[in-house]
Amino acid sequence: MNNYGIDNWSDNNFIIENGLAKVNHKSKPSLISIVKEIREQDFKGPLLLRFPHITQKQIDTLYKTFNTSIKTYDYKGSFNAVFPLKVNQLPNFIHPLIASGKKYGYGLEAGSKAELIIAMTYNAIGSPITINGFKDKEMIHLCFIAKSMGHNITVIIEGLNELEMIIEVLKETKMSSPNIGLRVRLHSGGSGLWAKSGGINSKFGLTSTEILEAYELMEDNNMVNHLTMIHFHIGSAMNSIKPLKKALRESGHIYAELKNLGATGLTSINIGGGLAVEYSAYEKTRFYSLNEFANDVVFTLKEIAKQKGVEEPNIFTESGRFISASSTVLITPVLELFSSEYELDHLKLKETNPPLIQELHDLHRDMTKRTAYEYMHDSMDHMESLLTLFDLGYIDLQDRSNAEILTHQIIKKAITLLEIEDSEELKRIDENIQEKYLLNFSMFQSLPDYWGIDQEFPIMPITHLNKKPTRSASLWDITCDSDGELPFDMKKPLYLHDINLNKEDYFLGFFNVGAYQDTLGMKHNLFSHPTEVNVVFKNDEVILEKIIESQKVIDILEDIDYDTEEMKSILKANLKQDIFIKLEKYLNENSYLKTIWSYYDE
Amino acid sequence: MNNYGIDNWSDNNFIIENGLAKVNHKSKPSLISIVKEIREQDFKGPLLLRFPHITQKQIDTLYKTFNTSIKTYDYKGSFNAVFPLKVNQLPNFIHPLIASGKKYGYGLEAGSKAELIIAMTYNAIGSPITINGFKDKEMIHLCFIAKSMGHNITVIIEGLNELEMIIEVLKETKMSSPNIGLRVRLHSGGSGLWAKSGGINSKFGLTSTEILEAYELMEDNNMVNHLTMIHFHIGSAMNSIKPLKKALRESGHIYAELKNLGATGLTSINIGGGLAVEYSAYEKTRFYSLNEFANDVVFTLKEIAKQKGVEEPNIFTESGRFISASSTVLITPVLELFSSEYELDHLKLKETNPPLIQELHDLHRDMTKRTAYEYMHDSMDHMESLLTLFDLGYIDLQDRSNAEILTHQIIKKAITLLEIEDSEELKRIDENIQEKYLLNFSMFQSLPDYWGIDQEFPIMPITHLNKKPTRSASLWDITCDSDGELPFDMKKPLYLHDINLNKEDYFLGFFNVGAYQDTLGMKHNLFSHPTEVNVVFKNDEVILEKIIESQKVIDILEDIDYDTEEMKSILKANLKQDIFIKLEKYLNENSYLKTIWSYYDE
Repeated sequence: MNNYGIDNWSDNNFIIENGLAKVNHKSKPSLISIVKEIREQDFKGPLLLRFPHITQKQIDTLYKTFNTSIKTYDYKGSFNAVFPLKVNQLPNFIHPLIASGKKYGYGLEAGSKAELIIAMTYNAIGSPITINGFKDKEMIHLCFIAKSMGHNITVIIEGLNELEMIIEVLKETKMSSPNIGLRVRLHSGGSGLWAKSGGINSKFGLTSTEILEAYELMEDNNMVNHLTMIHFHIGSAMNSIKPLKKALRESGHIYAELKNLGATGLTSINIGGGLAVEYSAYEKTRFYSLNEFANDVVFTLKEIAKQKGVEEPNIFTESGRFISASSTVLITPVLELFSSEYELDHLKLKETNPPLIQELHDLHRDMTKRTAYEYMHDSMDHMESLLTLFDLGYIDLQDRSNAEILTHQIIKKAITLLEIEDSEELKRIDENIQEKYLLNFSMFQSLPDYWGIDQEFPIMPITHLNKKPTRSASLWDITCDSDGELPFDMKKPLYLHDINLNKEDYFLGFFNVGAYQDTLGMKHNLFSHPTEVNVVFKNDEVILEKIIESQKVIDILEDIDYDTEEMKSILKANLKQDIFIKLEKYLNENSYLKTIWSYYDE
Repeated sequence: MNNYGIDNWSDNNFIIENGLAKVNHKSKPSLISIVKEIREQDFKGPLLLRFPHITQKQIDTLYKTFNTSIKTYDYKGSFNAVFPLKVNQLPNFIHPLIASGKKYGYGLEAGSKAELIIAMTYNAIGSPITINGFKDKEMIHLCFIAKSMGHNITVIIEGLNELEMIIEVLKETKMSSPNIGLRVRLHSGGSGLWAKSGGINSKFGLTSTEILEAYELMEDNNMVNHLTMIHFHIGSAMNSIKPLKKALRESGHIYAELKNLGATGLTSINIGGGLAVEYSAYEKTRFYSLNEFANDVVFTLKEIAKQKGVEEPNIFTESGRFISASSTVLITPVLELFSSEYELDHLKLKETNPPLIQELHDLHRDMTKRTAYEYMHDSMDHMESLLTLFDLGYIDLQDRSNAEILTHQIIKKAITLLEIEDSEELKRIDENIQEKYLLNFSMFQSLPDYWGIDQEFPIMPITHLNKKPTRSASLWDITCDSDGELPFDMKKPLYLHDINLNKEDYFLGFFNVGAYQDTLGMKHNLFSHPTEVNVVFKNDEVILEKIIESQKVIDILEDIDYDTEEMKSILKANLKQDIFIKLEKYLNENSYLKTIWSYYDE
């Protein structure tokens, strides 16, 4: 794999040309040219590059595909979509998204008060807003306020108490009520009836009994005309389309049943999110196209409407990952390669060496193609024995160092001699002599889903792509946490280039990081959100817009509630003036490594 | 288990008395009394209670235990400790910690620039500061600056390049150099020589070859006298003491070897952290006492020093979890219980029902102790069939509701009839009829380690502890994420009380949350850090100090770089004045649920 699986994950958003990773849009700038331009403005450390044109492409694709299916099947309902803010609430992402979606009436979904405020403020009037999650009376009042601004807002209730609160607010404020949706608890979402999530015990939604009760409650309060939507969500990043079909049938029947009960205002089924994104560099993990997805939704709902004799519902989707993931690339500078410690020039054999060291030396000298496997395995056994001898005080530190070097060299020589064709075996060996790449970023801050749910992200150097990468790589972040590592994995091997960082820079890109990673980012070791930039194309020009630098050290401390004025005065009182001035400069720079060489040198 | 395993996890910090969870200190206030006092001041939502006296106790225990071991073995080295800031950097935790540790010379460890600034500012002069993690030249310069303030600071190098930078800064600034430590890469830390972490491929530390190289480099630059410390760390939360013993032997020999090479300034071995905390409510998971731990460290180092004929090293530890975890309790209000939907009074059988519904009805009516098991399992089969019939359009929503109710009631009746003694079977059934408790908190914000690494935390209601809890509980947070759930687990069953929340409050405590959770907290759905309070005992008085309220909605938006002035003016322009005034109040309250009833009612 020399192209880092780009054909599998990039969806043609990025391409490799002349050894460089390039943005496949208009003037096709290389990522390295963008990175250099940003770093020249003194923004060092990791960078988040956002590409609004990719978000635009995803929105266009979503609407075009569904509208084609609707035409194909002569479907009577309309297609509508909202972006779930929880997937990425940051303004640099949201503002372009809203601009891109305007012509389609693309709306927003909110699941908390803060998200609702974003939607109320910036969503285009007329484009839908949907409200999910658990609500209190204030939040419901906020929904009424949004409605009074002219927003097309639907409150999707998760429990009967929320409906009761809507009725209370309606009576108490005399304001006009937002639309009401019912989130249904499907039995078909999970892998079995009593499965943890998606099934009958899942966190969200109303049972059939509750749906009937809710309907009665609305009837009793003359609110049935406000019931406009049935909602379900069968989980994030579906890799197969089968559970969706089952859920569509189930919810379609619930829709039809309610229509037949008399829910005249009920016009829509909201199928939630769940459209997957391809993250793998190694294999296909998403087993359907958007086309199939759309066709299945439209066809299934049409069938049920026909069977039950009701009108075909409008379709709503809330896919966030599909819209946002591919729009953002994390660029991490490589700070250091750790490997040179095992070079032969460090070997310092004594006049008389412990017998096992002597034997390692002989294995290395005498190894031939025929004996390579055997000698290599012998050397690894010897190494273990020698380490035990060290722990017991029988050999000294120089012996131990010699053992390290010889064993490492024996493995290296074996690989060369064998010209190993059996790639399984090669990977097994590569695991033992992996190169460690120290990256200037925090995995906890920038790839929380890797830590939390083992989410794979595509990784690719943004230069050197015309050279064969030869080093089996494990990646380290700069946190003091041994979890801050992407170890070399035989099953998904990552090979990188052998770089002399004194002579040239080397940057790794992590792709498809635009969904969830921004807001889930953790402040481990107090590393904060990286510097972010919107990369915008105007004709053939590439414009870097809305650069937001990673927080200054002093602001990070302020944020976690330190009295930074007190801190500065304590430091000032205890330092010579010229040193305090230097220190103050450090306080005003971001917390990543190698950020302000110039200040140090001043 | 009626006492929620408190004997296993609380270390006598909390006790149950008269049905209430109480702080086992001085006047022994109940947690509910503290919570009420805080909530009366209008701080709603989840609460973090910090108890500085528990931190004090942990520091006292650490020093007393090690100093006793030192006396017992007539050990010549001293005991020293630092608190690793990454475990909890927040000022409400750190300020009392520093005050508590002063008399022992308890210091701080920093792993990033922001942490180093905290240490430089607030660490007591003379108490040690240790610096771990990867460093750039600025950070090394900061260490020199700290040294110039009079701090006893040791820079622990992770690679030769860091030593080279120290030499550069020394030459360039002519400032006096901090002490130097070497982090050694042990082969004995992990589960095998080539294991992912702890072993030879681990993220941190120098190989033997690099140690020798570093030593030479120091010799060449007349810096050997600055080498004072050998450091290792074998991982977080060791549950057994065996790997520590191996690591002590290995690092002890490296210490002795360097002493014998001529490292006259080398006086200390820093054994890192790793002291575990008991989190389990169900079983013992830590298989050693602090006493054994201390004895093993002192005894092993004494032996090696004797074997190699060198002086006994001073001992440094960097345990953070042990010092901080037990000091903090998360209190979450229960907002809602979800279960009533299956009560018999919602059953609305028709004149003629589908045969399977009729059969469910008969099973329920005819069930006896003898037939209970059989009927229960039959009912679950029928339920699955009925759901399929619904999906195919053969039964209606009322039938489906009736099926839900009848099946649920059959299971309940079976449990009563059987008076099930076989607790395994009971738990299996409990799994099917669990009660859902909606808690006013975000698991992603307040228990990130539960999400990320399945960390168990002790859970206990803080009232009702004299009543038998009868409901098998699954816990939901208020995020829109199905991962925000602690499902009922047959292997670690949690039972809670059946509460009428209209009549009384019910709060769950999550204990031992003082390590890592604060800074790792994620802003999923934009829920921010909960309101925190230091609970301080002055004589018999309980004082609530340093209340920091959870962020206001508007500040959360400001934090993620929204232009909040613009937002307010957009909202103002689009709302009637009286409504905008209400909205503004919401913006100035925190984002959790049920926070400001009073404003709504105004």
